[in-house]
Amino acid sequence: MNDSTDPRAARLDTIANYEGPPIGALFDAEPDRLDRLVIEDCGIRFDFSKTHLDADLVAMFGELAEASDLAGQRKALFSGAVVNPTEGRAATHVAERGEGGNDDNQFAAAMRRRMRQLVDAIEADAFGEIEAVLHIGIGGSVLGPALIVDALGREGQNVDLRFVANIDGEAMDEALIGLDPETTLVVAVSKSWSTMETLTNLDAAIDWLEGAGMEDPYGRVIAVTASPDKAIESGIDETRILPFAESVGGRYSLWSAVGVSIALALGYEKFEELLEGAAAMDRHFKLSPVEKNAPVLAAFSDLYYTQNRGAETRAVFAYDERLRLLAPYLQQLVMESNGKGVTADGTPLDRPTSAILWGGVGTDGQHAVFQLLHQGSHLVPVEFVAVIENEDSQDPRQHRQLLLNAFAQGAALMAGRANDEDAARAYPGDRPSATLLLDKLDAHTLGALIAFYEHRTFAEAVMLGINPFDQYGVELGKDMARAIDDPETREEFDPSTKALIGKAGL
Amino acid sequence: MNDSTDPRAARLDTIANYEGPPIGALFDAEPDRLDRLVIEDCGIRFDFSKTHLDADLVAMFGELAEASDLAGQRKALFSGAVVNPTEGRAATHVAERGEGGNDDNQFAAAMRRRMRQLVDAIEADAFGEIEAVLHIGIGGSVLGPALIVDALGREGQNVDLRFVANIDGEAMDEALIGLDPETTLVVAVSKSWSTMETLTNLDAAIDWLEGAGMEDPYGRVIAVTASPDKAIESGIDETRILPFAESVGGRYSLWSAVGVSIALALGYEKFEELLEGAAAMDRHFKLSPVEKNAPVLAAFSDLYYTQNRGAETRAVFAYDERLRLLAPYLQQLVMESNGKGVTADGTPLDRPTSAILWGGVGTDGQHAVFQLLHQGSHLVPVEFVAVIENEDSQDPRQHRQLLLNAFAQGAALMAGRANDEDAARAYPGDRPSATLLLDKLDAHTLGALIAFYEHRTFAEAVMLGINPFDQYGVELGKDMARAIDDPETREEFDPSTKALIGKAGL
Repeated sequence: MNDSTDPRAARLDTIANYEGPPIGALFDAEPDRLDRLVIEDCGIRFDFSKTHLDADLVAMFGELAEASDLAGQRKALFSGAVVNPTEGRAATHVAERGEGGNDDNQFAAAMRRRMRQLVDAIEADAFGEIEAVLHIGIGGSVLGPALIVDALGREGQNVDLRFVANIDGEAMDEALIGLDPETTLVVAVSKSWSTMETLTNLDAAIDWLEGAGMEDPYGRVIAVTASPDKAIESGIDETRILPFAESVGGRYSLWSAVGVSIALALGYEKFEELLEGAAAMDRHFKLSPVEKNAPVLAAFSDLYYTQNRGAETRAVFAYDERLRLLAPYLQQLVMESNGKGVTADGTPLDRPTSAILWGGVGTDGQHAVFQLLHQGSHLVPVEFVAVIENEDSQDPRQHRQLLLNAFAQGAALMAGRANDEDAARAYPGDRPSATLLLDKLDAHTLGALIAFYEHRTFAEAVMLGINPFDQYGVELGKDMARAIDDPETREEFDPSTKALIGKAGL
Repeated sequence: MNDSTDPRAARLDTIANYEGPPIGALFDAEPDRLDRLVIEDCGIRFDFSKTHLDADLVAMFGELAEASDLAGQRKALFSGAVVNPTEGRAATHVAERGEGGNDDNQFAAAMRRRMRQLVDAIEADAFGEIEAVLHIGIGGSVLGPALIVDALGREGQNVDLRFVANIDGEAMDEALIGLDPETTLVVAVSKSWSTMETLTNLDAAIDWLEGAGMEDPYGRVIAVTASPDKAIESGIDETRILPFAESVGGRYSLWSAVGVSIALALGYEKFEELLEGAAAMDRHFKLSPVEKNAPVLAAFSDLYYTQNRGAETRAVFAYDERLRLLAPYLQQLVMESNGKGVTADGTPLDRPTSAILWGGVGTDGQHAVFQLLHQGSHLVPVEFVAVIENEDSQDPRQHRQLLLNAFAQGAALMAGRANDEDAARAYPGDRPSATLLLDKLDAHTLGALIAFYEHRTFAEAVMLGINPFDQYGVELGKDMARAIDDPETREEFDPSTKALIGKAGL
């Protein structure tokens, strides 16, 4: 921050310049380390003890939280006050879980009843027998439902749920394989009802229905949007429109009517459990003191590595095949929220903002990218996410090995191993990790896990002084895509871009 | 490098300290920029003009290449000399394309004939009617075949090809859904025939076959390995073992018998075309002068951003749904190869090595993570990969929009847009990108594309003085996983790890 009047600046500078011991030494120096840095709530064990957070750092971060008025901002979030100043509105995803301001909670509950009625009607064959749902959206309109259904729907789903996002027609081609237009419903999700990809893919789906001789293709479409008027204009009947609040951001929207596909695939009860789990984490975040607050401690860790160690990335590896879509989901949540360059009041920042989040699943990653984590030149804080309860049908020793590998990797990153004779086989160690250990992977716990990441992102934003709820960074690309498509403005583009267009014959 | 006698050191220092103009200014200052920084070969246009590489930098990098004896190392690679000194062996993936040393080429051709005979036999129903192949491997044993078949097999495949990698039994559960043991062949790939995940998953597959009453379950298994003796010991008949050379690294192995699943799914001819495309790129890399050599120019760009700008990452976005597995594939290739901490002769490096590669597909990424690319605090060199020929069955305007969006993003990153009134809507610009534009996505071009990335990675390693062909970094984790499983050694672990094991009840 170059605004020296910002009360955060001095705290962040102090943290950026702090020199602490290696993690291994902290375990010796702080016998109460596990008591302080392990939190258990909502069916999840959050272990931040294998990070460089020591008692002094946590105290410094506590002062930063205070200087940033984290408590006040948190209160603003949960009361429905404006926390998105550039767009002049609240962020009411917590109201979708019943934890927002009264009016917001009531509006969300009303919309949820409406969604439930539609789900009930579909299950009662109001649209005939429905075997498949084609969910069309992009970014926040698909990543959440895709994660949830992939994680929880492996034992069977009420419908065959397909997702289409990309404007690339290959995506639609693949999604339609084996679908019967007679038994397929289309769920189209666009907050603004102006998303180029989603409206184009909806047109393609309508063509597909029409091509199969369906008499009323628009009658097979459910629209989920914060702009119901526009959806009506485009030909969707109001009875099949599920609105949600303008103050629910796309990347925070799975809890709203955007989750209708979750309810259709897994049953409405599971969707409710998801909301309840998120609400439990909302209460944890709202009520726990800073030093026992899982999202806040996680944000301390994130800020330590970006501000003090200059880490440009952090990695999340889910040691559970069912969570293979967690990293892509978190990429949007974290990077679209906090990948910013200015403070909430528009002052350019001269500090790093969000780390780049990357990752995948274990144990696969061990055979692909962990080489760099152990011996590469960049410090990468790693997060392991694993689940105690085994629900697969293979030999239980496989799940045991899965967990032991997750734990062993965290231990290895921290411990390292010297090798004076052969430097190629030496491991520097002192590389940090956190471990999130879930009792089981059910809707409640998964809801809590995702809400944890939401609040961690919010807490980081508050301590950096940025607005996590806008995303102006995506507008320039949209404008340029329009300009490039217009022969007049195309001439103003650079020689490389014009040559590419020429080469492609566009 | 702290070894000042290394001839690279001075060149790298000069490059690290070079201060050049923004990219936009380079287009004005260098009217021949496209001629110099765009290369077309093997059906691919490589455009590096939207990077900070200017004529001076390319000249400096030319000197670095010379000081690093890139030409000599390249010759060593293609002649089958030792280029992997820590393991004391050659790297003969180029021989799999017929571009290595004579003996290596002959051995690879012989193994390929053997593989083809087996493919022919399977197609002639030697195993009865085969409808599905269960491909078991992890890391380099699956990422290549998975990418190729997902990219090229969308119009239909000869068999239903499933992949299993993770030790997590959820992976096997999913892979087996709908498979009939009577018509399924198992392809198990492990270079060492000691990979824990692969042997465990093979056991699970054998159990599945046995449980279905198959009389000779091992008779349904094809083993692909560089350790055929171990596979024989484990009960696989020699006639069903496809060996490949010890000198072919896992992450460079799709060209070898590891590609048998590609041949089974797409037909043997397609596999040959893939090899021919890679061979064409081998010749481009071998014969082109440094300044017109696509993999070498790409390596210059990679090194500029890591050494001069301190970029910890680079991003690859495929603007083609069929290449959605490209980024995960490249993550292994790049990060396992060059995520190192010592030179090839064992001297600790004090420079950054490999960037962390991340990415995904466009246009999806625009709605998820591009916010950070445009306005975040980190400089991220981006690579766009797109395909001119449209093969999907949707409205051609979709493919047109796909390409225009790819080009617009590169233009927007470079141009930026000032906004004096509203800093939240300002885009700094001068953010670099490269564009790889393929004429079409066929086996030949895809083979060339992957070989391009292999040689780029090799060229970067040579100029850094590191060995891209070993991967000792993964060993510590394996050792720790064994130690953690033994009650005696477990006691020596840190308190956090022991508590996690206790919590999980292991």
